[in-house]
Amino acid sequence: MKQIEGGICSVRGVSANGIKAEKMGIAVILAEGPAAGVFTQNKVTAAPVTLSKGVIDTHHRLSAVIVNSGNANAFTGDDGFLDAMEMASMLSENLDLDADTVAVASTGVIGRRLDISKIRELLPEVLAELGSTPECSQAAAKAIMTTDKAIKESAVELDCGVRIGAIAKGSGMIEPNMGTMLCFAYTDAKVPADVLDAALKVAVQKTFNMLVVDGDTSTNDMILLTSTCKSGIKPCMECLDDFQESLIYVFTELVKKMAKDGEGATKLIEARVVGAKKHEDARLAAKAIVRSPLVKTAIFGKDPNWGRIVAAAGYSGAELEQERLSLSLSGGEEKVELVDCGEISESFDLALLKKIMENYEIVITLDLNMGEEHATAWGCDLTYDYIRINAEYTT
Amino acid sequence: MKQIEGGICSVRGVSANGIKAEKMGIAVILAEGPAAGVFTQNKVTAAPVTLSKGVIDTHHRLSAVIVNSGNANAFTGDDGFLDAMEMASMLSENLDLDADTVAVASTGVIGRRLDISKIRELLPEVLAELGSTPECSQAAAKAIMTTDKAIKESAVELDCGVRIGAIAKGSGMIEPNMGTMLCFAYTDAKVPADVLDAALKVAVQKTFNMLVVDGDTSTNDMILLTSTCKSGIKPCMECLDDFQESLIYVFTELVKKMAKDGEGATKLIEARVVGAKKHEDARLAAKAIVRSPLVKTAIFGKDPNWGRIVAAAGYSGAELEQERLSLSLSGGEEKVELVDCGEISESFDLALLKKIMENYEIVITLDLNMGEEHATAWGCDLTYDYIRINAEYTT
Repeated sequence: MKQIEGGICSVRGVSANGIKAEKMGIAVILAEGPAAGVFTQNKVTAAPVTLSKGVIDTHHRLSAVIVNSGNANAFTGDDGFLDAMEMASMLSENLDLDADTVAVASTGVIGRRLDISKIRELLPEVLAELGSTPECSQAAAKAIMTTDKAIKESAVELDCGVRIGAIAKGSGMIEPNMGTMLCFAYTDAKVPADVLDAALKVAVQKTFNMLVVDGDTSTNDMILLTSTCKSGIKPCMECLDDFQESLIYVFTELVKKMAKDGEGATKLIEARVVGAKKHEDARLAAKAIVRSPLVKTAIFGKDPNWGRIVAAAGYSGAELEQERLSLSLSGGEEKVELVDCGEISESFDLALLKKIMENYEIVITLDLNMGEEHATAWGCDLTYDYIRINAEYTT
Repeated sequence: MKQIEGGICSVRGVSANGIKAEKMGIAVILAEGPAAGVFTQNKVTAAPVTLSKGVIDTHHRLSAVIVNSGNANAFTGDDGFLDAMEMASMLSENLDLDADTVAVASTGVIGRRLDISKIRELLPEVLAELGSTPECSQAAAKAIMTTDKAIKESAVELDCGVRIGAIAKGSGMIEPNMGTMLCFAYTDAKVPADVLDAALKVAVQKTFNMLVVDGDTSTNDMILLTSTCKSGIKPCMECLDDFQESLIYVFTELVKKMAKDGEGATKLIEARVVGAKKHEDARLAAKAIVRSPLVKTAIFGKDPNWGRIVAAAGYSGAELEQERLSLSLSGGEEKVELVDCGEISESFDLALLKKIMENYEIVITLDLNMGEEHATAWGCDLTYDYIRINAEYTT
């Protein structure tokens, strides 16, 4: 497996484009084939989530996706659902596709009716430049951004020649539960929808579901994985393992990009919990650490306040015993052991610890010393800018 | 029932005092009688929590409590437990009490050894002025403060003459689970420990367990309720109901004081969820609303971003259907209905809504329209000052 350029357009059979106009963005991705999806578990579900979930559950394939940013089309009732359907039929008419194989996604303000005429006005411009260049992938990734400051794309080529590429957006209202934010992933492997579905669920659990920016689960989370089958390569069993690992790799890259671009973030936090009795214990503890406002503010303040880390693990619900906990902090090439089996390391190097806290990427490793299971979660620090962005966001 | 002055010292048989010296505070409360307690469910449990829980579980009575602020005596291993025992025996020797009926509580930095010699040095000064005046209650309430900006005490007298008084501290690391922060409550009703225990659990569930400042559950949460029996009044069944309601009243007052004094807070948020099928649904939704960083920052920004409120309820785990939700916001004497059975109220008065958001106390009422159960949760906004306080807290 190697990283490649080109985002989703590196995958054979995918064309895309997007534009931003004032507060609204429109992206279209054209890619026909078997497909799988995961969606938000928020009970207040946006109309496009309901529509796209219906398409996937019924047909297990997609022909295209149309996405708008600037308005979430969430909590908009029957009108909102009709608007989402209108977006799908607009695209299908223009490109001569089956309307019920078009997925729709939206992101932005909740509880406000979509300006469908604006989408109708902008769509021809998007479709005129639909293409398969790296710039096309970037244009689509840019069009779906809201408070994001950077585009998020990732692509790899497997040893067998199959490619996987994905774009995503997400910066706030981020604590995924099953699906997350918006992510559109593509492959050209010749695999049926049920294989995509299984691979997607495994990958999401290890990546997007381990990301916390602020602990708010969105109403619009959606990840779609479509295969164009255009590589003509039908993966063997071994290649399928490789496919799974590569999908996890691509998603991990996007998750890190989202954590780095978390609203107001100045630092990336990676929490590795090892030595858990059960996998779920490792997951709970790792997520609690990156979710804790006190851990997040301490890291923003470059303060190695490790008491907050063990406190977060302690209330996470994970099975643990404080006498067994070992904790270290690392950043760059440096690492400091703070706690060893419940005992505070008396002799740790405070100067080195302070140097570690200056790093952009802080890695927390917590060993529960109870078993073999492990999990990693990602998050960002909590800063003045998170407050500014979210207190001044105009509704 | 009526509110009275004097805090814990209004309760017959209670004497107290406290002093603050630099970063450390010491409080002593002398009150002999049957007692009950609730304690943090954080698996990383501070030494004084372990000790005091042992005292309550074994003897179901207390003679006194000794509290220090400035150091949590948490994650301090066997040494920490010996230090907590030392605090108890120091007090018992000075006042000729049974050491194993003395409770100990600590609050402050986690993972640092307690300066026991400092406590030994300060204790005589505290004991010299031990008394039952309102100022003594205030001195104790002040001595246990950390980042708190105001003392927190409340007291009532029941119609039957029984009194209940309590002091508390807590400003950050607050999302109680069973017990919370530190709270010392007293009554002079002639009731046994099992009655106190039952009343305490009911009251805590409706009050302290419905408070969220930042979502971090402390390692040191503890609430102790002791009866001095000094009123000589043994409540009848009807009076016991009154006792329960009065205890809830006293705790609610303290919870509101804590929310108002939440780290960096500029506003008090009260989330009332009504019309739930099950009580647990109402609790989950109400707590999710006051926990949501996005709701908290919106309220700080005086922005009526109600989409974030329904989104928080949606991911809370509560059973709800978006088509049934009704939502209103109120502040001062004004109220605006925003959503009625899933439909956005087209005609609401935006000017009035903006006026409401200027209020210090914002009340959110969410009707699930599915049943008769209800719950109320309290919290505060999330502000620049929360970040400043917690990023600059020196370890």
